[in-house]
Amino acid sequence: MQMQQKEIKMNFSDNFLFENIKDGDFQKMMCCFTPKIENFKKNQIVCDFGKNPGIVGIIREGTAITVRNGINGNRTILESLEEGDIFGEAFTVCDKLSDGIFVICEEDCQVMFMDYRNILHRCSSGCQAHNRLLENFFYMLARRSVMLSRRVELLSRRTIRDKILCYLSMESCSQKTRKIRLPMSLSNLSDYLCVDRSAMMREIKKLNDEGIIKSEKKFITILDNSIDEDI
Amino acid sequence: MQMQQKEIKMNFSDNFLFENIKDGDFQKMMCCFTPKIENFKKNQIVCDFGKNPGIVGIIREGTAITVRNGINGNRTILESLEEGDIFGEAFTVCDKLSDGIFVICEEDCQVMFMDYRNILHRCSSGCQAHNRLLENFFYMLARRSVMLSRRVELLSRRTIRDKILCYLSMESCSQKTRKIRLPMSLSNLSDYLCVDRSAMMREIKKLNDEGIIKSEKKFITILDNSIDEDI
Repeated sequence: MQMQQKEIKMNFSDNFLFENIKDGDFQKMMCCFTPKIENFKKNQIVCDFGKNPGIVGIIREGTAITVRNGINGNRTILESLEEGDIFGEAFTVCDKLSDGIFVICEEDCQVMFMDYRNILHRCSSGCQAHNRLLENFFYMLARRSVMLSRRVELLSRRTIRDKILCYLSMESCSQKTRKIRLPMSLSNLSDYLCVDRSAMMREIKKLNDEGIIKSEKKFITILDNSIDEDI
Repeated sequence: MQMQQKEIKMNFSDNFLFENIKDGDFQKMMCCFTPKIENFKKNQIVCDFGKNPGIVGIIREGTAITVRNGINGNRTILESLEEGDIFGEAFTVCDKLSDGIFVICEEDCQVMFMDYRNILHRCSSGCQAHNRLLENFFYMLARRSVMLSRRVELLSRRTIRDKILCYLSMESCSQKTRKIRLPMSLSNLSDYLCVDRSAMMREIKKLNDEGIIKSEKKFITILDNSIDEDI
């Protein structure tokens, strides 16, 4: 690994971890954090969370995937990672549960690794931006947790109809309107709900026919007041 | 709300947030944190996350539930909370997604509220135990995220058979053995997998008959090497 103590270009303007942190402050923090920059070839293991707890990585270039290796070496893809994406913020401290979880390089990539303890503990220099970084880090983790919690709530519904109605009820609450703008394509929605696309389309048609919802392109309006009683 | 700056009894020995923090250090921190202690009657709203972002609560006495109120006021229970349990650590910073999420008192209870910013930002007194608290807080959130991520992975399987096999594969990895000790009753397992208990039992019997697994009371042994290819 190549250690770089200075002159790490801040090319993460879209990265939430560094939001509201100025380039000068970023450079100062990097001196304390002593991040490691490493290059990987396609299919190389970028990180084995079972063996490297405490590591947080940021993809500087290229793409990678987070996978779980099953007991016979079969892979389940958990997440796709692109430039600017962060990995490991949840797995770093849960060693037992992190066994079998890896980040694998999809295209040649460059990764910046940091020790999460450097993010959590303020260093002796007392960089002012550190509090901001800590808040961003915490926010990212909290947001991930809320998103996952919503998904569990949806997936725990046992029928396709209930999954759709639960999703619409949640979106209606978040968007504060009964006329919901679908934030994803219907195809992605069926993946998100883990149901067959055709079966989902049939159910949406049925809900329209029954006067419970009204679909118009990217919008679905909840017409019936009893939607919550169904779910 | 009754403000208590001193003399808050540390009765959270089982609470992970305060693990490895001595009582003296706890008292010092509480002076900086100025937590608020409040009592609630059955069915009272303890916290409305949509209106109170930034609040972390600990149940000191009694029980409560975290619920999501649907658009017509119907409730989905998200979590049960008992003495020593913490709530809000994920919802505090995600205001838009937290709309409609409440903590409701089930039995009369006493709750200690803290501002999450006090946990994140070290105060001027520089309590040494604060780093430990921050690590514990972060660990709790990361662990919740990992547990939810596992659950999403399981629930995204489309058949009962696939859900069972995926669960066994994960447990086998965590327990580092093919002879898995089920950490919960079969009835709770069917709830965890969100499937009908009888249908799950039929599928387990089928997997036994096919020589893929062998069940013996609390133990399930994975016999067939191709378990991962099925899922």
